[in-house]
Amino acid sequence: MRTAAARQARLTKPTGSLGRLEDLSIRLAGMTGRLDPPLERAVVFTLAADHGVAAEGVSAYPREVTPQMVLNFLRGGAAINVIAREVGARVVVADMGVDADLPAHPELRELKIRRGTGSITRGPAMTEAEATRAIDAGRQLVAGEDPDIVLTGDMGIGNTTASAALICALTGLDPRLVVGRGTGVDDEGLRRKQAAVARALEVNDAAIRRGPLATLAAVGGLEIAGLVGLILQAAETRRPVIIDGFISGAAALTAAAMDGGAPDYMIASHRSHELGHAMVLERLGLQPLLDLDLRLGEGTGAALALPLVRAAVRLLNEMATFDEAGVSDRA
Amino acid sequence: MRTAAARQARLTKPTGSLGRLEDLSIRLAGMTGRLDPPLERAVVFTLAADHGVAAEGVSAYPREVTPQMVLNFLRGGAAINVIAREVGARVVVADMGVDADLPAHPELRELKIRRGTGSITRGPAMTEAEATRAIDAGRQLVAGEDPDIVLTGDMGIGNTTASAALICALTGLDPRLVVGRGTGVDDEGLRRKQAAVARALEVNDAAIRRGPLATLAAVGGLEIAGLVGLILQAAETRRPVIIDGFISGAAALTAAAMDGGAPDYMIASHRSHELGHAMVLERLGLQPLLDLDLRLGEGTGAALALPLVRAAVRLLNEMATFDEAGVSDRA
Repeated sequence: MRTAAARQARLTKPTGSLGRLEDLSIRLAGMTGRLDPPLERAVVFTLAADHGVAAEGVSAYPREVTPQMVLNFLRGGAAINVIAREVGARVVVADMGVDADLPAHPELRELKIRRGTGSITRGPAMTEAEATRAIDAGRQLVAGEDPDIVLTGDMGIGNTTASAALICALTGLDPRLVVGRGTGVDDEGLRRKQAAVARALEVNDAAIRRGPLATLAAVGGLEIAGLVGLILQAAETRRPVIIDGFISGAAALTAAAMDGGAPDYMIASHRSHELGHAMVLERLGLQPLLDLDLRLGEGTGAALALPLVRAAVRLLNEMATFDEAGVSDRA
Repeated sequence: MRTAAARQARLTKPTGSLGRLEDLSIRLAGMTGRLDPPLERAVVFTLAADHGVAAEGVSAYPREVTPQMVLNFLRGGAAINVIAREVGARVVVADMGVDADLPAHPELRELKIRRGTGSITRGPAMTEAEATRAIDAGRQLVAGEDPDIVLTGDMGIGNTTASAALICALTGLDPRLVVGRGTGVDDEGLRRKQAAVARALEVNDAAIRRGPLATLAAVGGLEIAGLVGLILQAAETRRPVIIDGFISGAAALTAAAMDGGAPDYMIASHRSHELGHAMVLERLGLQPLLDLDLRLGEGTGAALALPLVRAAVRLLNEMATFDEAGVSDRA
């Protein structure tokens, strides 16, 4: 990081004029131990699962949309496919716990832990053993694909409710500050969602006191646990990981609670429109690169941020220094 | 725009969940008259010129940096070259009025109107005839390159001072609200810069009252006038134009004063760290895509925004609709 910072100061531009891209290039050097980490093999991991709480009127969309969207990902018709093609990233879709039988497909990783979680308003979403298996499956995904840079993504009707509950449980924040409209529920739906999160925190209070793994199992989700695994594995193997939006933020917060060094490897892609997301980023000490009012998930924010991350590294390595270019440095 | 908005509503995502990229795709349809405007041939026009006011201690860098940086652009070692390579854009460098003899180079457009402007603190920067020739040269650049999308860029020691004066003259804003640190002047330099702008507004008061062309000639710059031409030509030929930072913002404001329809074709790339830039964007009715504390110019912000613009168009055209994908729309 020292070497990167010293080089930034010699490049042909006023010091600091590339703003947050300068800090980013220095952080990437710290993450990877290299000034010029390769970022060619970028993989968006879009993890899908269902949520028991979806039956309680917390989403604007019916539950069958989860498997329908998985098929859409596999056909290349979803937003994440289009953006990944534009920015030069690959999409890997994993079924972590969709409540449907999905057809075999060469691009689908079949890692179903169980068919959806139990409703967090009535008890734990899953057992701690299941949460551990989901985390491990996420770790194996990274190990198997061996990407230069990891991008997180999610799909699961009901998962903003689980993510809000997880964020409240880990931070102590009031549900009214964290629960947003997700896919676009109306006022009545928002009240149901807030009530569901408050109830989930009450019902699972004992588990939440036991620490991050029990909390994840109690109020999280199978794709969220998989994302925790992705992030922990990225950090352990010194790979940068671009964190998508609200759901990925909940996973990032959980990963940080399990491994205090994990945030060093995180790059926040965007500030989601979803309520409470800004507070998550603040807790993680991360500043997002984009602020486009996105609230789609799938990894779309992470993929849109990838060109900025690649540009930051190229700028550090390919720009001429004042000496090389014969440009006068200061008056 | 109606057709684009209707299609956005049928794509497989919650309405509005792609945030500002949805509005952008609709605006681009309005600009070009197409849902799928080609954006392949993207050209960053980096226009360079010198400023008489640079002799008055308003910049952290000496005046010879302008020609030195032009050579750096031609060798591919500047930030704009690196970013353009990453995002797939071409850089066209034009000498609009550098106060030095530059060597012939196949990638340099030699359009020198004069060797630098006169100091705006003592009189007009240039004559109206010179300003008109610079605007016309900017128009010809676009016509000659025939790009799908225009990106604006600048280089010129002293040009944040001229841009601040131009912005104050066009908006009536107080110099203390508009003048920033540019390449990084200290407190003393900032006071000199504010005083220079205040003096320029006083000295050129009669010209400023005559309208945007006389104002541009009085307190602007040769590269700024060239940028005005780029923008006017882009708007007239229905090409989108990505506006870089503070200097390009001053040119955009001038173009808007000359042609009230021009802002319809403008895409604001980023909110510059430079003071007063946010006010310029507000006057133009534009919301920037990036907020990265950039303050370099050259077209770097515009080029960094290009992948977002391309992604917005691809999303509108390549995403599956709910019907096509067999995804349930709402509960």
